[in-house]
Amino acid sequence: MSPGTIHGVGLGPGDPDLMTVRADRLLRAARHVAFFRKPGRQGQARRIVEGLLAEGVTEYPMEYPVTTEIEVTDPRYNALLSAFYKDSSDRLRVLSERGENVVVLCEGDPFFYGSFMHLYARLNGKVPVEVVPAVTGMSGAWTATGTPITWGDDVLTVLMGTLPEDDLARRMADTDALVVMKIGRNFAKVRRALARAGLTDRAWLVEFAAMPEQTVTPLAEAGDKVTPYFSIVIVHGNGRRP
Amino acid sequence: MSPGTIHGVGLGPGDPDLMTVRADRLLRAARHVAFFRKPGRQGQARRIVEGLLAEGVTEYPMEYPVTTEIEVTDPRYNALLSAFYKDSSDRLRVLSERGENVVVLCEGDPFFYGSFMHLYARLNGKVPVEVVPAVTGMSGAWTATGTPITWGDDVLTVLMGTLPEDDLARRMADTDALVVMKIGRNFAKVRRALARAGLTDRAWLVEFAAMPEQTVTPLAEAGDKVTPYFSIVIVHGNGRRP
Ligand SMILES: C[S@@+](CC[C@H](N)C(=O)[O-])C[C@H]1O[C@@H](n2cnc3c(N)ncnc32)[C@H](O)[C@@H]1O
Ligand SMILES: C[S@@+](CC[C@H](N)C(=O)[O-])C[C@H]1O[C@@H](n2cnc3c(N)ncnc32)[C@H](O)[C@@H]1O
Repeated sequence: MSPGTIHGVGLGPGDPDLMTVRADRLLRAARHVAFFRKPGRQGQARRIVEGLLAEGVTEYPMEYPVTTEIEVTDPRYNALLSAFYKDSSDRLRVLSERGENVVVLCEGDPFFYGSFMHLYARLNGKVPVEVVPAVTGMSGAWTATGTPITWGDDVLTVLMGTLPEDDLARRMADTDALVVMKIGRNFAKVRRALARAGLTDRAWLVEFAAMPEQTVTPLAEAGDKVTPYFSIVIVHGNGRRP
Repeated sequence: MSPGTIHGVGLGPGDPDLMTVRADRLLRAARHVAFFRKPGRQGQARRIVEGLLAEGVTEYPMEYPVTTEIEVTDPRYNALLSAFYKDSSDRLRVLSERGENVVVLCEGDPFFYGSFMHLYARLNGKVPVEVVPAVTGMSGAWTATGTPITWGDDVLTVLMGTLPEDDLARRMADTDALVVMKIGRNFAKVRRALARAGLTDRAWLVEFAAMPEQTVTPLAEAGDKVTPYFSIVIVHGNGRRP
């Protein structure tokens, strides 16, 4: 029997209308669908495909053992996550070896800071794996602002809010256009770094891009609260334009 | 009569299967379709939608007055392009004012270094304009390499090959993951900059990502030729992974 294929399928930023034609087709035909979620939550990836899955599909939620209870720098964090990804990929591998195709739901583009990459690293070369690229969360976010992100020769820098403040401030001051992801509990730090780089008045906070709860706020007018997981800071470039 | 909407529709990197469900629906329903092309060419955007357009659709090719005959730094370049974008946007505006919806075809994501932005800047606020984000060429390119682009806290820098060599080399040496677009006649310069940054052995050249002619080549094995317009250099990040 020939092994089944594990499809890492990017779903785009949130609106099901923004998934690709290929993703849509694979999803509707899928008999086995796996997805990450926090324990006790539905999971955003699963939410995006609500109403699209075929009857009789088998679902495989993969529940993160930790999210923010343990610091990323704690060695236990790494050990727990590593065991989780091994276990999850082993289960997908068993399905593939039984000849079953599996669709793994991915938020945004799978190869762009995605959790699926940790399964991919463990499965690729052992069973057939295919990846379907997608609209990223950041494309959803800059589209939501109604202003293009980059013009002409603009340099675009993508930073994670988890970086140290000094790194953030230095890199923010040295780019034309900017995207900051993974903000959440790092919001106050990201904001200080933007101020140090002189960008407060050019920055936008986009929450839940391309989702029903979408908000677009000038950073200077945003409150002080921790931002939701699905938040992005955008600074538009000002490059050459005829 | 209420004005029609100008839809700037991203088509993704090339494979029609990678356009969004929304783009696919708008295209099939469109009665007026506009797109950029070089004189005498079909144009890549138009090629992507071959076979998808409805019968009786009216097509509006917008032919660039110059591409590489005049240097970007020559003031005539700017004047010619500026008149071209004004003329093109005026024509779309007339259609909108007649109550017609128009789909403008865009390669990749419209707001990411796209030509549509020059129409958008002239039309937005005057007639209804909507933008449909899309899979970028770079997502198509890193997916083609079969390796994720960014992990953990990786910094991603996107550079245009049109930048001066010193800028390229400095920024290449100061990032975790790298995308270089607009290579073409800048290929020799981009290559020297990559060498100065010590990245030659980690860089990949992706030509025609997600198109039938797609190639993926380690940079060290690539020839010396000018690369095609649809070429991207990718250097993968190596960030934290449990
Ligand atoms: C682990 S990364 C995954 C990125 C995803 N693979 C992509 O292509 O966008 C998660 C981060 O992406 C950003 N993000 C993804 N989708 C988003 C959306 N629809 N709205 C706002 N932020 C989003 C947030 O900054 C979030 O912290
Ligand atoms: C004017 S920019 C437009 C970018 C486009 N809006 C996007 O989202 O990818 C043109 C550059 O994009 C890159 N590009 C776009 N699509 C590509 C593809 N399918 N394969 C390789 N390069 C591509 C090339 O570097 C090209 O020089």
